[in-house]
Amino acid sequence: MTDTRRRRMPRPVREQQIIDAAIRVFAKRGYHAASVDEIAELAGISKPMVYLYLDSKEGLFLACLRREAERLVAALRAAAGPAHPPELRLRAGLLAFFTFVTERRDSWVVLHRQASELSPAIAAELGRTRQAVMTEVSGLVRTGGPEGAAPACPDDEADFVTYTLVGAADSLTDWMTLHPDEPPERITLRLMNMVWVGMRNVLDGEVWTTPAGEP
Amino acid sequence: MTDTRRRRMPRPVREQQIIDAAIRVFAKRGYHAASVDEIAELAGISKPMVYLYLDSKEGLFLACLRREAERLVAALRAAAGPAHPPELRLRAGLLAFFTFVTERRDSWVVLHRQASELSPAIAAELGRTRQAVMTEVSGLVRTGGPEGAAPACPDDEADFVTYTLVGAADSLTDWMTLHPDEPPERITLRLMNMVWVGMRNVLDGEVWTTPAGEP
Repeated sequence: MTDTRRRRMPRPVREQQIIDAAIRVFAKRGYHAASVDEIAELAGISKPMVYLYLDSKEGLFLACLRREAERLVAALRAAAGPAHPPELRLRAGLLAFFTFVTERRDSWVVLHRQASELSPAIAAELGRTRQAVMTEVSGLVRTGGPEGAAPACPDDEADFVTYTLVGAADSLTDWMTLHPDEPPERITLRLMNMVWVGMRNVLDGEVWTTPAGEP
Repeated sequence: MTDTRRRRMPRPVREQQIIDAAIRVFAKRGYHAASVDEIAELAGISKPMVYLYLDSKEGLFLACLRREAERLVAALRAAAGPAHPPELRLRAGLLAFFTFVTERRDSWVVLHRQASELSPAIAAELGRTRQAVMTEVSGLVRTGGPEGAAPACPDDEADFVTYTLVGAADSLTDWMTLHPDEPPERITLRLMNMVWVGMRNVLDGEVWTTPAGEP
């Protein structure tokens, strides 16, 4: 299938180079303003070759989305190893996420800020990405109960906790742009402080109620 | 300024009718697929009259955004009356938000799901909306410490808590579409369970740390 006559490097390697360049340009310019010319130049590859490999600007963007989504999900999965007690798994998952956002800022801009209405194909891919992340976090939460107890909580509660955590972490990436020097470890610790006690209490059956004597 | 010769109702009333119709059509069709024809028909007003009042499809969308953003901010502000103790203010703020999303589903679709890259003017308006909501929540959080103690926590901590809460609540509106029968009161109670204890502990200086003996 692959025509290698005039190439010095294998197709997968060159594709990764193109994707690296595309992520930088998309993050910097936004989807609409990004030009395939600039991406080709940054990748050191001719524009026709870029089209040959990745078909179109949309194809390029989808390739970026897919690769970075896979990396993010892999990072979450690696962090959530079953060997740890639940609160350390949660901490490891959050830390993996905030580290990804800190170290791969351009990727996060592409994954997070580029609008979901760009095209139906891109919206669908973003939807799949979000779902994959939700699945990882949900796995973390479902074994997030007292040590040894699995599954820790009903699916319904676990889903609620998952949406809360994903939304909070997502929003905190905006906070991070305002606090670029805050290390991922500290962000993780702060969020653990916000949510872990509440999660533990919910899983232990303790609930917040209106204080006595109040409406 | 206003030409009233051929109209039966005052301009502000008619504008509100157009905006009501536009919100329904934008929520149903999305920005790109929505037609000014359909909006005019639903509002019972001629298309040229719609253009006369609100200039363009973008103008219509901006008018929708502005009106609904004002309503959301007003609901948050009303809920956060200074008379209550902090946890009740937080509960009231969350309840106001989830009630808005439940009762004004179309408005929320327009505010939340319509992409921020539609046009620079729309993106700017969405940014202002998010900022206004952040300001309200931040006000809630800053007096969220032990009763009587105000300001309750350093700005830095309050900002972090604000981004966490706004992101969590935002994400939970997706959870709500999967659980349409869940009343706002119960969603509020669940989120209070997740975050209030953690917030209180943070404000009281209690912090989560890695359990003894763990890495």
